[in-house]
Amino acid sequence: MVNYVDRETTLCISLAARPSNHGVRFHNWLYAELGLNYLYKAVAPTDITAAVAGIRGLDIRGAGVSMPYKQDVIPLIDALDPSAERINAVNTIVNTDGELVGYNTDYVAVASLLRSHGVDPSLPVAVRGSGGMANAVVAALADHGMSGTVVARNAETGPALAERYGWDWSPEEVPAGARLLVNVTPLGMSGLAPEAQAFSDAEITAADIIFDVVAYPVRTPLIAAAERLGRPSINGGEVVALQAAEQFALYTGVRPTPEQVEAAEAFANEENS
Amino acid sequence: MVNYVDRETTLCISLAARPSNHGVRFHNWLYAELGLNYLYKAVAPTDITAAVAGIRGLDIRGAGVSMPYKQDVIPLIDALDPSAERINAVNTIVNTDGELVGYNTDYVAVASLLRSHGVDPSLPVAVRGSGGMANAVVAALADHGMSGTVVARNAETGPALAERYGWDWSPEEVPAGARLLVNVTPLGMSGLAPEAQAFSDAEITAADIIFDVVAYPVRTPLIAAAERLGRPSINGGEVVALQAAEQFALYTGVRPTPEQVEAAEAFANEENS
Repeated sequence: MVNYVDRETTLCISLAARPSNHGVRFHNWLYAELGLNYLYKAVAPTDITAAVAGIRGLDIRGAGVSMPYKQDVIPLIDALDPSAERINAVNTIVNTDGELVGYNTDYVAVASLLRSHGVDPSLPVAVRGSGGMANAVVAALADHGMSGTVVARNAETGPALAERYGWDWSPEEVPAGARLLVNVTPLGMSGLAPEAQAFSDAEITAADIIFDVVAYPVRTPLIAAAERLGRPSINGGEVVALQAAEQFALYTGVRPTPEQVEAAEAFANEENS
Repeated sequence: MVNYVDRETTLCISLAARPSNHGVRFHNWLYAELGLNYLYKAVAPTDITAAVAGIRGLDIRGAGVSMPYKQDVIPLIDALDPSAERINAVNTIVNTDGELVGYNTDYVAVASLLRSHGVDPSLPVAVRGSGGMANAVVAALADHGMSGTVVARNAETGPALAERYGWDWSPEEVPAGARLLVNVTPLGMSGLAPEAQAFSDAEITAADIIFDVVAYPVRTPLIAAAERLGRPSINGGEVVALQAAEQFALYTGVRPTPEQVEAAEAFANEENS
């Protein structure tokens, strides 16, 4: 099969230390489905400064940015969208005639899911985790009008994240009143801690809604326990698909339908299944 | 059709002010034919310095270089292969673990065709043209042991090219004794001067062999006249295919067979036919 590329093809890339195939499969499938002359390629750069120069120099339309580059790219681009400015982290660069603007579609996706799932802003929250993605999640929760507790063993990043949004910090204990439980740790992730359930059955039973950011697998022990205990949930697959759809819309100007996003996500995950 | 790209795909590009689809179609067809996980994309850079930085920064394996960048890239790369050093012009950059080496596969292709067609080095040559490609052609002829006359109206580039290789210069007249006639002007080229025959019937009849570098169409008025007058010829399609095959071998380490090159060339030209 000859690749469908010609001199008009618009190139988008991802920059990650260890690229996955998810974005490559998701975006290329949707380009084909929607008849867009685009191509998406994953890149593992050796030098992030040279890589961003390459986005400009080779007229690359967009770039997904993963760990460990989400902060590193900020001084290398021209402007930040409010989504990236809010959390000082860029996961998407859009190149419009040489002007590079940074976005954070993780933040946008989480904020959007809180709205679409009708999450009541008055619920006290417990967020487990304090890494880069936890920062995006807590910012979106706070901007949804919510407050609560960051539960994280890390005595540096945990209290710093809590303080940034005026939340509490707990090194281990999930506070008794928590009614939205959010996992932003690798607990339950395939290959890392596949058996681990990020919150206990008792904690889940006491809560109204469960949110797991882990996407591989979509059905983590936490999501399975929420189902078993009759609690509604938001899963990591929704976050991954929605943030990729946001990127797609930024790059192409075309917003795929939810059905198209679902089909692209299914294609992207065939490898991981 | 979803593009066959994943995180392992090796990216090659071309850099040209006005990219054609030839390289894109030629290389991508051969990648598919030979089962190589490569992708070739044409780029029209706005800034050649940033573009070469992008080759490094995005770990791009190879880049074809067209007008007007063949000299511009020299100070931006790390080393020159003798083929590029000989004529001070790069049409191919190969990136090996961050070291960028410049080649000139036009020179290599012309030199190779002179050998494979068994051109007698003692034949006096007339080369019509004095641009960048004429420089590659005269160098290859000289290194094949040949000498003769540069026929070019341009009173700056014509004598300069002749002098560089110790040849004669003639502004208009083809010298009577010329027995290899080479056209490196646009005479006969589709869209520019499709009816023009670069050498007269009388000049062709007096010669042993005709070489036309014009590739679009392959059958120029000059090539057609050589056939009509019973003179053997080398055509521009051979140059284009061979230089692209050289690039392909430099990028992939795989040398396609003549049959594969011919089939790739046919695929590449479907659009232009």
